[in-house]
Amino acid sequence: MTNRKSDIAMIGMAVMGSNLALNLEEHGFMVSVYDVREGICDKFAAGNRGKKFYAAHSLKELVDSLKTPRVVMMMIKAGEPVDQVTGNLLPLLQEGDIIVDGGNSFWKDTERRVAECEKQGVLFVGMGVSGGETGARRGPSLMPGGSRKAWERVKPIFTSIAARCDGDPCCGWTSDGGAGHYVKMVHNGIEYGDMELICETWWFMKKCLGLSDHEAADVFERWNQGKLDSYLISITADILKKDDADGQPLVEKILDKAGQKGTGKWASQSALDIGVPLTLITESVYARYMSACKEERVHASVVLEGPKEQQSLEAAGDGKAAEASAGDGEAAKAPAGDGQAAGAPAGESYAAEAPAGEMQVQNDDRDRWLSDLEDALYAAKICSYAQGFSLLKAAEKEMGWKLDHGSIALMWRGGCIIRSRFLGEIRKAFDRNPELENLLLDDFFREAFGKAQRGLRRVVSEAVLLGIPAPALSAAVSYYDSLRSSLLPANLIQAQRDYFGAHTYERVDTPDGTHYHTEWQKES
Amino acid sequence: MTNRKSDIAMIGMAVMGSNLALNLEEHGFMVSVYDVREGICDKFAAGNRGKKFYAAHSLKELVDSLKTPRVVMMMIKAGEPVDQVTGNLLPLLQEGDIIVDGGNSFWKDTERRVAECEKQGVLFVGMGVSGGETGARRGPSLMPGGSRKAWERVKPIFTSIAARCDGDPCCGWTSDGGAGHYVKMVHNGIEYGDMELICETWWFMKKCLGLSDHEAADVFERWNQGKLDSYLISITADILKKDDADGQPLVEKILDKAGQKGTGKWASQSALDIGVPLTLITESVYARYMSACKEERVHASVVLEGPKEQQSLEAAGDGKAAEASAGDGEAAKAPAGDGQAAGAPAGESYAAEAPAGEMQVQNDDRDRWLSDLEDALYAAKICSYAQGFSLLKAAEKEMGWKLDHGSIALMWRGGCIIRSRFLGEIRKAFDRNPELENLLLDDFFREAFGKAQRGLRRVVSEAVLLGIPAPALSAAVSYYDSLRSSLLPANLIQAQRDYFGAHTYERVDTPDGTHYHTEWQKES
Repeated sequence: MTNRKSDIAMIGMAVMGSNLALNLEEHGFMVSVYDVREGICDKFAAGNRGKKFYAAHSLKELVDSLKTPRVVMMMIKAGEPVDQVTGNLLPLLQEGDIIVDGGNSFWKDTERRVAECEKQGVLFVGMGVSGGETGARRGPSLMPGGSRKAWERVKPIFTSIAARCDGDPCCGWTSDGGAGHYVKMVHNGIEYGDMELICETWWFMKKCLGLSDHEAADVFERWNQGKLDSYLISITADILKKDDADGQPLVEKILDKAGQKGTGKWASQSALDIGVPLTLITESVYARYMSACKEERVHASVVLEGPKEQQSLEAAGDGKAAEASAGDGEAAKAPAGDGQAAGAPAGESYAAEAPAGEMQVQNDDRDRWLSDLEDALYAAKICSYAQGFSLLKAAEKEMGWKLDHGSIALMWRGGCIIRSRFLGEIRKAFDRNPELENLLLDDFFREAFGKAQRGLRRVVSEAVLLGIPAPALSAAVSYYDSLRSSLLPANLIQAQRDYFGAHTYERVDTPDGTHYHTEWQKES
Repeated sequence: MTNRKSDIAMIGMAVMGSNLALNLEEHGFMVSVYDVREGICDKFAAGNRGKKFYAAHSLKELVDSLKTPRVVMMMIKAGEPVDQVTGNLLPLLQEGDIIVDGGNSFWKDTERRVAECEKQGVLFVGMGVSGGETGARRGPSLMPGGSRKAWERVKPIFTSIAARCDGDPCCGWTSDGGAGHYVKMVHNGIEYGDMELICETWWFMKKCLGLSDHEAADVFERWNQGKLDSYLISITADILKKDDADGQPLVEKILDKAGQKGTGKWASQSALDIGVPLTLITESVYARYMSACKEERVHASVVLEGPKEQQSLEAAGDGKAAEASAGDGEAAKAPAGDGQAAGAPAGESYAAEAPAGEMQVQNDDRDRWLSDLEDALYAAKICSYAQGFSLLKAAEKEMGWKLDHGSIALMWRGGCIIRSRFLGEIRKAFDRNPELENLLLDDFFREAFGKAQRGLRRVVSEAVLLGIPAPALSAAVSYYDSLRSSLLPANLIQAQRDYFGAHTYERVDTPDGTHYHTEWQKES
């Protein structure tokens, strides 16, 4: 075994590193493995006897075991550890050797590391890796970027272990510097958006249509056969079907405080920096923050009232008296309150389904509403991806990268958490027009949104009247309606800024660039 | 003149610096002035002969002209220049001397500068200043923070020139480090929110109710007599009344690309960092970004369709056939399109008012809708301020500051851009309960929102159906309904994260802290 030099080294043998190592080995590569935790790698090698692994006991031994130019990959905690390991590796490496960071690193750190390593002749690749444990083992989505010269050497390795879609590997070179981790960051932002949108549609089914979790699971399973076909929809169906030991849906036993690793906010912060309206993804990040304010919400639910005399206009139009007061803050007061008592302690159970009562949309409208919900989710998803790809486009300009958006859609098409049929359509859109300004302007998505918008508007409007939170769905509507407004009321903002701060304004009837100031208080 | 030592020095004699200097002098202080641009200060002193000014020609001369401990204030461009001037001042100052930065500095820079100066025994104050030119001259809102020891020395100076409300100065010590500039940053975020909300209600009046700008001015003037009484509402009325040379409203000639100095986004980025759902303010920042995408919007308006078969449910409920297709993207197709042609070039005019046609809410409903709009703006404003004060509360914890929220409300009550009767109510709320968790939980605001929420829901729901963008109003509804939900669908997010990434979850029926993992794919 020691006679043969390894094709690649893996540093960090936690679940992601181990699974990637196994995946690499299975594809014919000899893999040297190393972990700071003593014994981990010997155990791993022993457990995989007969396979092409070499367990190193020091970084030096690891580096010495590799073919040149060397490829050393890290799957370790982002931040300080990556700088430490990089610093320790550099003296051991030669010009042309390659370091690959597959962790969830902040893209600006990767920018810096690429520059620092290149100064010493070492190539640095920041590679987004998505797909969780299973993806790592069976075929992840890989988004490499950084030192361009490294690509030729690592391409055969990474394309062979990546997920495939219609024969194409879900792995392609992104661009220079931190581009790979930037693309992964946008992927994560979109993932936040997808998850929040699914939650909001589920909540509407539950709170307004009175669906049980099992019924909702059936709906998601059905949706997964159509235009919403995606990994996240499919696991949602699995989750909603899963019962706890007591026969109640397990999801209802889970505390509704959403966690996060902090990567989701980066996309929003970057969008704020470079001036892209990333509204839906940002609302999704904030929705997680709001979920984390559990104690504040429990307190607020007791004192804050929901809509009262408000009727469901939809039902009113149909001549049905569907009095709406669906927020759980109302439950304590409304005689036919929903199952979740307003003043319930933090440990309350979700298990009691809201009875299909007068507070809810009539059952016989269910199918129509479910069809609207499917459209709402689809239309909002189009807006979310339009925003994500717009962010990539702006980032390219800002950072001087050259990104192939079709190739990015392909990277996300399989292997990763947001994989979906939908991304196949996005790829086609960018194949049709690689310079596409906004996904909504592509014929396919324009028409798809056009058909689905009625459902989106109906759902959001109803949620607003009934008091059911739908922040991401609402953001989708606002985004679409703002985008298609050749005129927005920002002229008033400019007038206000000129009024109180003499910030000046441009006029519609003179060419760009001339600035005017008005003494607003004086009579005209 | 040279015999008397000055009470304070002003560096940077642009409009803000000059006006503050004049204000200081008027309140009995002798002011030394300095500007890097030669001749500026001599000219200023000459133009104010007989007043207590001393024009210095170097930093050394400026510093030498001051009483000790010295107070040197800067009103210069934020960023690098502040570091330069601070660096040049330090060798000239003695222990206990004070530097005051009144510019729009990033609060983290101020944190750093306070620490750097204190190392050399010099006290540094980062002071938010709001109120524009007029405020600076006649009484600004001042938000000082930084080296606490400086407060005793500068308090009499700044409280005497600040705006006053019911006898109290709109100036109070915030806290350590960058607290003053942090408070100013939140002020600016709230200002963005207020301005966007005004724009959205104006747009609804215009697009849905068919009000002319002069009619809208009357509405804002009326609102300014009631609960919405505020500086921004009053200047909005002034603006909408102002005509251009051709007799058309001037606002319609202003290009709808909103500018910004980049300070608005800081509040959102900080909220994302420390985990506070600052949704409304962030939507307002994004709305400015969207307004700046003028060319993209003009293009999109031609191809993206608005709501079609969708009816205004409100009108339908009333038995009126108000067919809605209000977005301007529709204009090119709809026979009774609004006055702003979809495909109009970027230089198009706003001047043509939308005819009050079948696309709009019936005129005889106007008063009801205007009352709803007033409630909508008021309710959304409550949410916006609730978010802003929540951010301050979280920042306090994060940074170890101690902020007096009632005192901050008072600082904003007068002098600054967001000054309003409303802030008087906020002050009272924090007087009643200084530890108030969320503004919405105060009795006054809870009841006020409760009364106004019907209008907010009606307006947002209608805007969504009609295709009129209302991102900030929508964010208000989502925020309120999320806050009062003791249960949110984030349990599904936690299940999804555990499914694909083994991130584990907590249960509602076990005490906090225990984490569970489920093999979701296996049959239960």
